[in-house]
Amino acid sequence: MNEETDRLKNLLESYIAREMPLDGPLESQTLFEAMRYTLDAPGKRVRPVLLLLTCKAVGGDENEALPYACAIELIHNYSLIHDDLPAMDNDDMRRGKLTNHKVFGEAMAILAGDGLLSAAFEIMHRDYLKYLDDSEALARRLRAGYAIASGCGIDGMVAGQVADIEAEGTDVSIELLDYIHMKKTAALIRAAVSAGAYLGGANEQAALAFTKYGENLGLAFQITDDILDYGSEEGKASYPAVQGLGVSCARLEELTERAVRAAESAEGTNKQYVDLLTEMALSLSKRVK
Amino acid sequence: MNEETDRLKNLLESYIAREMPLDGPLESQTLFEAMRYTLDAPGKRVRPVLLLLTCKAVGGDENEALPYACAIELIHNYSLIHDDLPAMDNDDMRRGKLTNHKVFGEAMAILAGDGLLSAAFEIMHRDYLKYLDDSEALARRLRAGYAIASGCGIDGMVAGQVADIEAEGTDVSIELLDYIHMKKTAALIRAAVSAGAYLGGANEQAALAFTKYGENLGLAFQITDDILDYGSEEGKASYPAVQGLGVSCARLEELTERAVRAAESAEGTNKQYVDLLTEMALSLSKRVK
Repeated sequence: MNEETDRLKNLLESYIAREMPLDGPLESQTLFEAMRYTLDAPGKRVRPVLLLLTCKAVGGDENEALPYACAIELIHNYSLIHDDLPAMDNDDMRRGKLTNHKVFGEAMAILAGDGLLSAAFEIMHRDYLKYLDDSEALARRLRAGYAIASGCGIDGMVAGQVADIEAEGTDVSIELLDYIHMKKTAALIRAAVSAGAYLGGANEQAALAFTKYGENLGLAFQITDDILDYGSEEGKASYPAVQGLGVSCARLEELTERAVRAAESAEGTNKQYVDLLTEMALSLSKRVK
Repeated sequence: MNEETDRLKNLLESYIAREMPLDGPLESQTLFEAMRYTLDAPGKRVRPVLLLLTCKAVGGDENEALPYACAIELIHNYSLIHDDLPAMDNDDMRRGKLTNHKVFGEAMAILAGDGLLSAAFEIMHRDYLKYLDDSEALARRLRAGYAIASGCGIDGMVAGQVADIEAEGTDVSIELLDYIHMKKTAALIRAAVSAGAYLGGANEQAALAFTKYGENLGLAFQITDDILDYGSEEGKASYPAVQGLGVSCARLEELTERAVRAAESAEGTNKQYVDLLTEMALSLSKRVK
């Protein structure tokens, strides 16, 4: 990772550590341990870093975007914990560690996920209330919050999970697969980028361009995962399973190009950060080569 | 129920039916069915009705409070679905119907809960964005949203669930039991009442008085449930199990009185609605007689 991207990631880590303490009240101490267990697993923090980079790309202040970057990472972690549950993907390992329910039990893992999702919205609301006297600053935040709320919800990530589960073991069309990828993975990544654009005060043209960047990057992200997992996941709807590896790689290249073009088409941006965003898209597609 | 309370409840039912359609996109259709399955089970809608009554009691407009009343009912229903899961209370029946996971399976029930929680925040955010040009109306809504977010989260309902699970099979002190009741049940009921007060534009004295009403009512609510369930729930931390039935009934009476006194102490209120609120508290304690 680039030095500046690293700096933003470190800012985020400190923010998470501050907002999500290891210690809660004695009576619900295990909840805090369970949430932090998954949050602390080493990860690339793709979504919050995208949010912060986009905010900077349109001239915004990273410190103002931190609560939203943190919120989207909490939401991502909640989704990992719930996805790994026995009733869902039934995974024992994640990022080289035992999954949450393997350590804390199923009940606590369900509650840790619920807690992380709630905490994301609590953190954003706490931030909203600081800007009641600044209607422009508040409007930027509420647009970001709405992008995040819709990205993770019943027309976003949750819908994608449902479609994914329902598709298991069936003959999946390419249209259904596109729907699943768009909702399950791209919706939250697009929300991260859109939220960053809103928080940075992007004009309409730039916000739209970055949203397009996020959507294509999100789709590319899922295809990359599918290609890397190809062969190891039985019965799961995946791009290479439906279309073959060749078509999948071509599609990945096309999506990456679209993402890069969209980011570069945004007007009034800071080139350093647009370059970092395009670099992220390109490094992603390089993972499968 | 009183005629006016019934009218508000019916308004809410129509609002829920409009905001949470039975039909979603074909690919995630089952999610919508699963969410509506639990939402449509006949219930008293205690939390949203409390929110609407409190809003009216301080002179607010019920129509403006409906998105928040709906949100809090979605959150309550998410908590029911997750509580009933095999890993949690493992209940097969709820309100005379099979529980959500018994009909839709565990994976879908987890996602239906996640979807309802997300939808609650999405609906509130959609409402916020309508008031960007009216900073006072927006501030009332954001205070309500924050009350709801903290009531349901890691310092509220989720914390209470965790403490409740951890207490199972242990020797529960009365202090721990009070903590569990305060978080697991009272936090969301208090949030409903506080949100109603904020939405109605209550002054500080009235908002505080109603918050106290909500907290005491919430504690009374859980003790009532505990008394009604006494003997049927093995190993669960409950008031009568720890303190005996006599002390529990006396405590219920005391909490009800406190709730009524708090509501009546609020200044500048509409008497008709304060009476309905005190009636709700009194009818609750009558259930155990």
